[in-house]
Amino acid sequence: MAEHNTFPQLLLTLVAIIAATKLLGELAQRAKQPAVLGELVAGVVLGALLPGVMNTSGPVIHALAELGVVILLFEIGLHTDVRSLARVGGTSLVVAAVGVVLPFTLGYFVAVALGVATIPAIVCGAALTATSVGISARVLSDLGQLERPEGQIVLGAAVIDDVVGLIILSVVATMTAGAALEPLSVLRISAVAVGFIVLALLLGNRIAPTLFGVIERVRVSGALGAAGLAFAFLLAWAATAAGSATIIGAFAAGLILHSTPQRAQIERSTTTLGHFFVPIFFASVGASVDLRTLANPAMLAAGGALTLVAILSKVAAGYAPWWFRGRKLLIGVAMVPRGEVGLIFAQMGLASGALSPVLFSALTLMVMVTTFVTPPLLARLVGDSDRGVRTDNPGEGGIDDLVAGARESA
Amino acid sequence: MAEHNTFPQLLLTLVAIIAATKLLGELAQRAKQPAVLGELVAGVVLGALLPGVMNTSGPVIHALAELGVVILLFEIGLHTDVRSLARVGGTSLVVAAVGVVLPFTLGYFVAVALGVATIPAIVCGAALTATSVGISARVLSDLGQLERPEGQIVLGAAVIDDVVGLIILSVVATMTAGAALEPLSVLRISAVAVGFIVLALLLGNRIAPTLFGVIERVRVSGALGAAGLAFAFLLAWAATAAGSATIIGAFAAGLILHSTPQRAQIERSTTTLGHFFVPIFFASVGASVDLRTLANPAMLAAGGALTLVAILSKVAAGYAPWWFRGRKLLIGVAMVPRGEVGLIFAQMGLASGALSPVLFSALTLMVMVTTFVTPPLLARLVGDSDRGVRTDNPGEGGIDDLVAGARESA
Repeated sequence: MAEHNTFPQLLLTLVAIIAATKLLGELAQRAKQPAVLGELVAGVVLGALLPGVMNTSGPVIHALAELGVVILLFEIGLHTDVRSLARVGGTSLVVAAVGVVLPFTLGYFVAVALGVATIPAIVCGAALTATSVGISARVLSDLGQLERPEGQIVLGAAVIDDVVGLIILSVVATMTAGAALEPLSVLRISAVAVGFIVLALLLGNRIAPTLFGVIERVRVSGALGAAGLAFAFLLAWAATAAGSATIIGAFAAGLILHSTPQRAQIERSTTTLGHFFVPIFFASVGASVDLRTLANPAMLAAGGALTLVAILSKVAAGYAPWWFRGRKLLIGVAMVPRGEVGLIFAQMGLASGALSPVLFSALTLMVMVTTFVTPPLLARLVGDSDRGVRTDNPGEGGIDDLVAGARESA
Repeated sequence: MAEHNTFPQLLLTLVAIIAATKLLGELAQRAKQPAVLGELVAGVVLGALLPGVMNTSGPVIHALAELGVVILLFEIGLHTDVRSLARVGGTSLVVAAVGVVLPFTLGYFVAVALGVATIPAIVCGAALTATSVGISARVLSDLGQLERPEGQIVLGAAVIDDVVGLIILSVVATMTAGAALEPLSVLRISAVAVGFIVLALLLGNRIAPTLFGVIERVRVSGALGAAGLAFAFLLAWAATAAGSATIIGAFAAGLILHSTPQRAQIERSTTTLGHFFVPIFFASVGASVDLRTLANPAMLAAGGALTLVAILSKVAAGYAPWWFRGRKLLIGVAMVPRGEVGLIFAQMGLASGALSPVLFSALTLMVMVTTFVTPPLLARLVGDSDRGVRTDNPGEGGIDDLVAGARESA
């Protein structure tokens, strides 16, 4: 209305964000890349072309972006089947464990070697841990590999390292908020995050089916979707009250509602809300990238080194389950893309002041490159393994595993 | 995240708003009342029980509520068929014209008689003009009267007085923002609002079909809904830039997209977003009601007088088309409920300082009472007219018209 001269500005900012993220998201998808990459680039472009626009509306855009992260983690939780994780079992667990410990440790030491202080180095290591479930699943599905053993192992491992990554994130969030870095407090914060998820699942699985069964009978339109969202917001708040992070609560809410009969309806309305809120988060992360840091040799060195560590450590994780006779290189490469969780780490590090703009740009670069290289690599690996079967010409090195896997499933 | 101690508060506020509006909206619907009444009461309760909660998150809740109004007017526009308005023709136009002029004039003079100054008295008159399309349509549809001539006339008139009400609103918004109250400037602002809608429809009807035809072929998920929203936000901004109000632009965007083949999909995602945003607006209006003013004799006198004028003037408007031989009382009563637009007037008046808290409460009371009395009155009128036909015992006064209408359609 006329008296608030910032509200029309907010409207225009939202128009710019929606138009740019959808346009570049579409271009990314047509180039066989995930849409999130386009949304990030849209944010970078908006931040560069219209300096100040992304911050004009200040606290409101910021709050919309944070609601976007909460809704995103709620969506990821809704897609995650805790029980099927148990079924994929040992193989995924080993891939996930190695795929968390290795990048975290290597990332930390690479950062320290580059002269980074302890806490930012921990944030760097942590940002390397979590594979993007969405990106891996989408690419493997496009290649017809999602139902094969390798695809199932990747999915399971990606979900596990998401959970572990979120726990690390809640520890890092508490640390960057000023808590002392003592082994006991790290243990305590991890215990709170794990305890919160376990307790929420135990209580939630008893309460949610009855509660949402009642809500389903409500006549007022949109009640089920609204109730799901309120449930996610409530658990997100409860997680912070318990000393953990909002995203842990939102994720736990999704896990709980995954197994209710009302999931499909809740998912539909959450996805629609997500289409509005989530790109605001990715765009605001992209807009936080200071383009001047891209020409900074320190940024390029850190970004290059972290990207290399990010790729090699996940590929190595693919080889960790030594007993598995499938395409280990395919598993490793599929674990490479970092996405949402890595960006949340970077954004949180920047907002809290733990990360310098240079390190923030280096981590954003790492997320973009790992996401960017995976789809063509996977397409080539799957093509090679198919060709390998047809021509009986295995080649050497990692191709052995690819062929073994292809034969197994042929 | 841990470092923003207001974000968890925002989450909790949203949980309280969602839970209270959906619960009381459901209770309202079960009592055969529109859900918006429950949402308003939810806001009153939240404002009273948790003083400060609705304002704790300050600018963010305010911005979400304003986005709610824009989305609401976009939805109303999407439901409005400009061409069918032309078909209902003269009868609706006369009902609408009398139903705008009479309440506006009477409301203004009643307010002045109560000692209210010129500008707040104009706001009071203006808030009485617009019938709530949604409420009338819903109640008439429940009673099986929507397809009858009376129902069609009510729908047409309600849409026309919404448009006229919005134009009056844009004039009042500019006035309360400090512009001088001169006949020429009132004329100019009205011309801008009408001109904006006409120009937007002319340009939009040429551009939108091609534009949204292209967007429909986009693969990225949720693109069509996002594009519709961006279109509404863009026109809302353009309307303010042209010197009118955001809601004029959002309404025009809805009118334009109503006649595109992509309407159904855009409507679906807008409705889902509306389920989240719109109740925040109604709850924040309810929360603005200062309960202490309810015991204030001046408020009760003003609220009572305005409610009486609101009811009588719309009933009189039903009798305006003297040539129509249908149930005129039914038409008049169906025009009584004021809703969204009346609340927007009141909220805008309060925010700009033009309305005192007492007058704001009086207008909110008027909206609630007119909305509250209509459904049982309509049910009774329809029942009476049906009984009249069965027993051939017409009774006297307004019942003549009811019976004539019932015979016509029997």
